[in-house]
Amino acid sequence: MKKANKKINAAILIIGNEILSGRTQDLNVSFLAKWLNLKCGISVSEVRVIPDEEKQIVHNIRFMKKNFNYVFTTGGIGPTHDDITAKSVSKALNTKYEYHKEAYSILEKYYGKINFNLGRKKMAKMPKGSSLIYNPSSAAPGFIIKNIICLPGVPKILISMINNVKNYLVKGQKIFSKTISLHTVESNISVELSKVQKKYSKKIDIGSYPFFRLGKVGVSLVLRSSKQTVIKKCLKDIKKIIKNKKIKTYKN
Amino acid sequence: MKKANKKINAAILIIGNEILSGRTQDLNVSFLAKWLNLKCGISVSEVRVIPDEEKQIVHNIRFMKKNFNYVFTTGGIGPTHDDITAKSVSKALNTKYEYHKEAYSILEKYYGKINFNLGRKKMAKMPKGSSLIYNPSSAAPGFIIKNIICLPGVPKILISMINNVKNYLVKGQKIFSKTISLHTVESNISVELSKVQKKYSKKIDIGSYPFFRLGKVGVSLVLRSSKQTVIKKCLKDIKKIIKNKKIKTYKN
Repeated sequence: MKKANKKINAAILIIGNEILSGRTQDLNVSFLAKWLNLKCGISVSEVRVIPDEEKQIVHNIRFMKKNFNYVFTTGGIGPTHDDITAKSVSKALNTKYEYHKEAYSILEKYYGKINFNLGRKKMAKMPKGSSLIYNPSSAAPGFIIKNIICLPGVPKILISMINNVKNYLVKGQKIFSKTISLHTVESNISVELSKVQKKYSKKIDIGSYPFFRLGKVGVSLVLRSSKQTVIKKCLKDIKKIIKNKKIKTYKN
Repeated sequence: MKKANKKINAAILIIGNEILSGRTQDLNVSFLAKWLNLKCGISVSEVRVIPDEEKQIVHNIRFMKKNFNYVFTTGGIGPTHDDITAKSVSKALNTKYEYHKEAYSILEKYYGKINFNLGRKKMAKMPKGSSLIYNPSSAAPGFIIKNIICLPGVPKILISMINNVKNYLVKGQKIFSKTISLHTVESNISVELSKVQKKYSKKIDIGSYPFFRLGKVGVSLVLRSSKQTVIKKCLKDIKKIIKNKKIKTYKN
């Protein structure tokens, strides 16, 4: 994996009526976001969920490929009529939609010549010039073309393929993070916290997240920065505030 | 709730760095989508997840309010520095951002005059002309302005407020759905299914979703249409296919 000493971002395009209808709970965004952050130093800047409609896919692919370093799509690369991601990405790029020789041979071997029907063959069609992302779960590969990475929608299969994506990505600047969880409510510290955020401005991102779990009420503060020294200084300031306010911390 | 005998759609704007970093698993999309479908006959057409940044919120609110019947936002209406939804929505609408009298009095009563600090007061500020969405969990209300409905990010609190949104919405045409689950894989039926979808064209939406659970492998077909007669006819065609292919069904 090549390294770049700068911020690198990504967008995720979730393609699927089943997410928009609420029938299926999306799990890919949180998995991909964590994996990209931790393993690749890449931050997810925007996510969109859109229906299985060519016009929508084409429009969003064109927008995202211009505005983000990488675009990850999930869903729509299976054998059925509603799987139109590969065809739509080809259209978005004005590229031929055609059989990928290696994908064809992988799938033919997997299903056997006799059972290699049209639906199954469709999974070997993709934009001309694509590189394959091998699939150890169910053979049908994902693909990469330019800065667009197309993955399946089923989380287990996506997870099994993700390490095969790594070599195609350029690693960004690592973002460090530190979480501190407090025995308080947000509104008790919001004014002071706001001053701390202003002091460090864009050098750090302070997130404040209330939680209610197992009968415990509290606030988690998440400090994120590309510089660990900034996190340390900021944490010191926050510790002063909570000492003054006699707020206890939870063990993380 | 008023009724309109036509399709009504909505977009959801999830505002929050914690979703984009993967720290928090979003649960609001599937809840809202199901609730809107079942209780209000409203379909979710697009979802976007964006960071806590004013420019992004303003841009997306302006786009969504024009292009969808309703816009639901979640997140960013708490007391901390990263809660900027109300201010950003005001800006998107070129409307004054000011204290809402009733919200102010609800919150003052809840916290008590002495503890009603600036952070807490901030939760009473919203676009001029907003209507309140009462919050039985933690007092701080959501708000509705024009076709924009602003809700909190914490799923439990959002759920406790949702029935207070209902009276502001116009009910759309009911969408019926029927699921049939098959002992097969998608690629075994994809060609035939594609023909059925073509036959009914836009009268019905046939979704095909593979599943792998509790050791069972199969495909769920979901038929969605505003006309039950169309669903019945289409189901008959599908049953012919699975009979010919000797595919068994799962009990749903």
